Amino acid sequence: MSAGDIISENDDVLIVFDEKRRFIVKARKEGVLGTDKGVVRLSDLIGKPYGSIVKTSRGIEVLILKPLPFDYSLLVQRVTQVIYPKDAGLMIYLSGIKPGSKIGEAGVGSGALTVMLASIIGDSGLLYGFDISEKSLENTKTRLERVGLINRVRLLKHDIREPVSLGETLDSFFLDIPDPWNAVNTVAGLIKTSGTLLVYVPTINQVEKTVLKLQESGCFTDIHSYEVLLREYKVDRDAVRPFTRMVGHTGYIIFARRIKCNLGT
Amino acid sequence: MSAGDIISENDDVLIVFDEKRRFIVKARKEGVLGTDKGVVRLSDLIGKPYGSIVKTSRGIEVLILKPLPFDYSLLVQRVTQVIYPKDAGLMIYLSGIKPGSKIGEAGVGSGALTVMLASIIGDSGLLYGFDISEKSLENTKTRLERVGLINRVRLLKHDIREPVSLGETLDSFFLDIPDPWNAVNTVAGLIKTSGTLLVYVPTINQVEKTVLKLQESGCFTDIHSYEVLLREYKVDRDAVRPFTRMVGHTGYIIFARRIKCNLGT
Amino acid sequence: MSAGDIISENDDVLIVFDEKRRFIVKARKEGVLGTDKGVVRLSDLIGKPYGSIVKTSRGIEVLILKPLPFDYSLLVQRVTQVIYPKDAGLMIYLSGIKPGSKIGEAGVGSGALTVMLASIIGDSGLLYGFDISEKSLENTKTRLERVGLINRVRLLKHDIREPVSLGETLDSFFLDIPDPWNAVNTVAGLIKTSGTLLVYVPTINQVEKTVLKLQESGCFTDIHSYEVLLREYKVDRDAVRPFTRMVGHTGYIIFARRIKCNLGT
Amino acid sequence: MSAGDIISENDDVLIVFDEKRRFIVKARKEGVLGTDKGVVRLSDLIGKPYGSIVKTSRGIEVLILKPLPFDYSLLVQRVTQVIYPKDAGLMIYLSGIKPGSKIGEAGVGSGALTVMLASIIGDSGLLYGFDISEKSLENTKTRLERVGLINRVRLLKHDIREPVSLGETLDSFFLDIPDPWNAVNTVAGLIKTSGTLLVYVPTINQVEKTVLKLQESGCFTDIHSYEVLLREYKVDRDAVRPFTRMVGHTGYIIFARRIKCNLGT
Repeated sequence: MSAGDIISENDDVLIVFDEKRRFIVKARKEGVLGTDKGVVRLSDLIGKPYGSIVKTSRGIEVLILKPLPFDYSLLVQRVTQVIYPKDAGLMIYLSGIKPGSKIGEAGVGSGALTVMLASIIGDSGLLYGFDISEKSLENTKTRLERVGLINRVRLLKHDIREPVSLGETLDSFFLDIPDPWNAVNTVAGLIKTSGTLLVYVPTINQVEKTVLKLQESGCFTDIHSYEVLLREYKVDRDAVRPFTRMVGHTGYIIFARRIKCNLGT
Repeated sequence: MSAGDIISENDDVLIVFDEKRRFIVKARKEGVLGTDKGVVRLSDLIGKPYGSIVKTSRGIEVLILKPLPFDYSLLVQRVTQVIYPKDAGLMIYLSGIKPGSKIGEAGVGSGALTVMLASIIGDSGLLYGFDISEKSLENTKTRLERVGLINRVRLLKHDIREPVSLGETLDSFFLDIPDPWNAVNTVAGLIKTSGTLLVYVPTINQVEKTVLKLQESGCFTDIHSYEVLLREYKVDRDAVRPFTRMVGHTGYIIFARRIKCNLGT
Repeated sequence: MSAGDIISENDDVLIVFDEKRRFIVKARKEGVLGTDKGVVRLSDLIGKPYGSIVKTSRGIEVLILKPLPFDYSLLVQRVTQVIYPKDAGLMIYLSGIKPGSKIGEAGVGSGALTVMLASIIGDSGLLYGFDISEKSLENTKTRLERVGLINRVRLLKHDIREPVSLGETLDSFFLDIPDPWNAVNTVAGLIKTSGTLLVYVPTINQVEKTVLKLQESGCFTDIHSYEVLLREYKVDRDAVRPFTRMVGHTGYIIFARRIKCNLGT
Repeated sequence: MSAGDIISENDDVLIVFDEKRRFIVKARKEGVLGTDKGVVRLSDLIGKPYGSIVKTSRGIEVLILKPLPFDYSLLVQRVTQVIYPKDAGLMIYLSGIKPGSKIGEAGVGSGALTVMLASIIGDSGLLYGFDISEKSLENTKTRLERVGLINRVRLLKHDIREPVSLGETLDSFFLDIPDPWNAVNTVAGLIKTSGTLLVYVPTINQVEKTVLKLQESGCFTDIHSYEVLLREYKVDRDAVRPFTRMVGHTGYIIFARRIKCNLGT
């Protein structure tokens, strides 16, 4: 009957009050989620199928959904720059990563992209996550543990602009730091030839510096710089139009493929 | 030393002559790829690492790369509508699919998206691919066999606008047919509650009809209609600007989440 | 030395406190403009050149500028739909109007576009402004009187969907009503052959209905439907990027040229 | 009867064979326009109303229209960069120019924008057109003579990056040269306080340099940098969508208002 998966204890549940008020909680034998629309008992969630409805203490119906990966990223606090779904979607697509891929990411920031990447590489994959901030590494570790993906990730406190050796080469590297041009030599050494590099930067000046450095290195080909604009439409019968407000800019995406080159040693 | 994977017999190789002329061939003991720049012997590819360079019979250097999933889609002949990377990236991201996912696709068309989806769900996943065209199913089968992913896919000659039962429910469904509103009831029955639906259509009229039908069905929530615009930048030192020409439109993406509803039986 | 025009009594002055707080006042012998930053005496404005600075009673410097036509439109209260500068600029450009043009507008709405059009046609031009709302006609009259352009405009309380005769034919007509397709016959009768029609509508459904009606009428050629997207850039040294937020949609612009046809009589 | 203006000898006529083949000719007592669809005798045009139809020697019907200002700019050969209607429309709108305005332009290039500007300022206005190229000045002169607007324009062979005095100050200045930052001091001296400056440049690096120079000069306020994207829609019954191809980039527009400042002398 199209029944959704049944919610067990400790499963994550997305509780939807309305378009704006959405919370991810864990189904538990004790505890509540309290809002102005009443209280949801976390024990009420256990045994229900995802996609069904529960009532708050005030009788208001709320929807219980299985959180999608991007639900986690939209709920994260904006302490660091978050890569938007429109950008993450294209970056992941262009990277060519899949179950079993060995990949790198620096910096991990809030861990939102890390969760997405770890989800896709599967149990046979491995992600090396670099950051210089102890706090970012901690937050990312917490998020990965919560979604049960920590076993696919090795978090390393290391400045990616400095040389590092991993004992293996990577299929793809995601670079999200303020001065990616200073990390080009290091990441070139980490990516296997024919592997991919994805860089994310907010200003056009950073695009210019990074692309020129990639060209000069002689270690990359197919260097492309993209910008993704996402429009959402308001669809009413006989009255379809884009929403009045939109996000005008997030960041630019640089794609490149590693080729054989002289890397010093 | 960052060496790329070594090319073995029967591996696919992307041979890059220049920005425009790119071919995917299989490394073989016999045979050649002939162009106006000379001949590449397919046996020369075996034993070389991806990311390195070989010479044609005329001494011209060409790059040999490991094909990325999107390389296959860009090389496919445009006999049917192809979903562009900018759109496929967002659709896959929003779908939440990952290794192990059970998913559906209708129609499979050229099989370009099918290959991408099959790549992501891994060996533990399963994709049901529907089409009414024998030829589309054949083409898709050929493409999946070529990239070694046919074991993850069940191709079915069935009109998705007509009822069908699979014996299990799906995490996500990708719908790419001219009149998706006529398939809403069928796919609602195939997707598990809290699962996702992604629809791709070229005109705004199709968006309107599909969204209204999704709303009326009572089986979907979080219905959103998107359009992705991709700009590429020309990056020269001290002269950065978007390219003069761009793709102005491909298609619209509709996203929805399945919820509990009355589906007749 | 590049002195601006000197402000005389009754001249309009744009007083700029900061990016957000801007007011248009008339220079007068009496009266003040009061804000939380202190009071500006309107008599202080007289005799100053536009482009200079005056101080408020609290010693804060404010800029006094000569209002541009679009300053008026941005300050108007949004009681009715306002045509944005990005759209008005293109519409006026495509219309081909110039000093001496005879033009029509329906409805006049807030009068913002009316002021722009009246400004461009000069004293030798004439604008017929139609509206069904007494209040809109009143507001438009007030705005035109304020900027001294009322002599170029004839305001008519008439439903443009109903036949009307002006005794002369027009070079161009601007149509901004909810159902422009119902006014196609009337305006076709008002525009001289080879004259231009500009239509402004917020939804894509209105575009479809209007364009189909224009085609069916046989009275128009070169029918084009446009949408203008405006991005603004944040320019800091070594950090240039589009603003994070932008207006995602205002309206669609339809352009057409009147040709000889059978208009009944 | 909505009759268009009657074509007289020496009037310009836009002859439309189809969407792509359009020519502007002068109605004359002698001469023909020859194409593969047959010959149009220029004497046949005289006495016809604009907006009507004539037949070629091969019996094919062609439309005869009164050329709009932008028809001239679209037909000009692309020897120099042409400012597109989408950009020219916004620039003219923001400039606030109208009948009687005194304005400047450098360089005049092909003269396409010059014709538009001269059209709007009327017989009581005056345009100073600067260029360093004798050929550009010649071409512009020819175009202005052809449309009968040469009396409103003074063409000057002068490098706008070098000081110049006009004996009067200008309401607005249009700057379209490769290094506008080097002309900021000169044009600041030409524009009256509270007057407007419009700059057009193709790369984002030029935007950065120009905006920083405008800020440093202390002579400008309200400095804004814009980009206009124009989408055209293909409208068929029940199948509306943007065109597949669009112009992705032309140039950036910088707007600023002149204020009182220290300009040396």
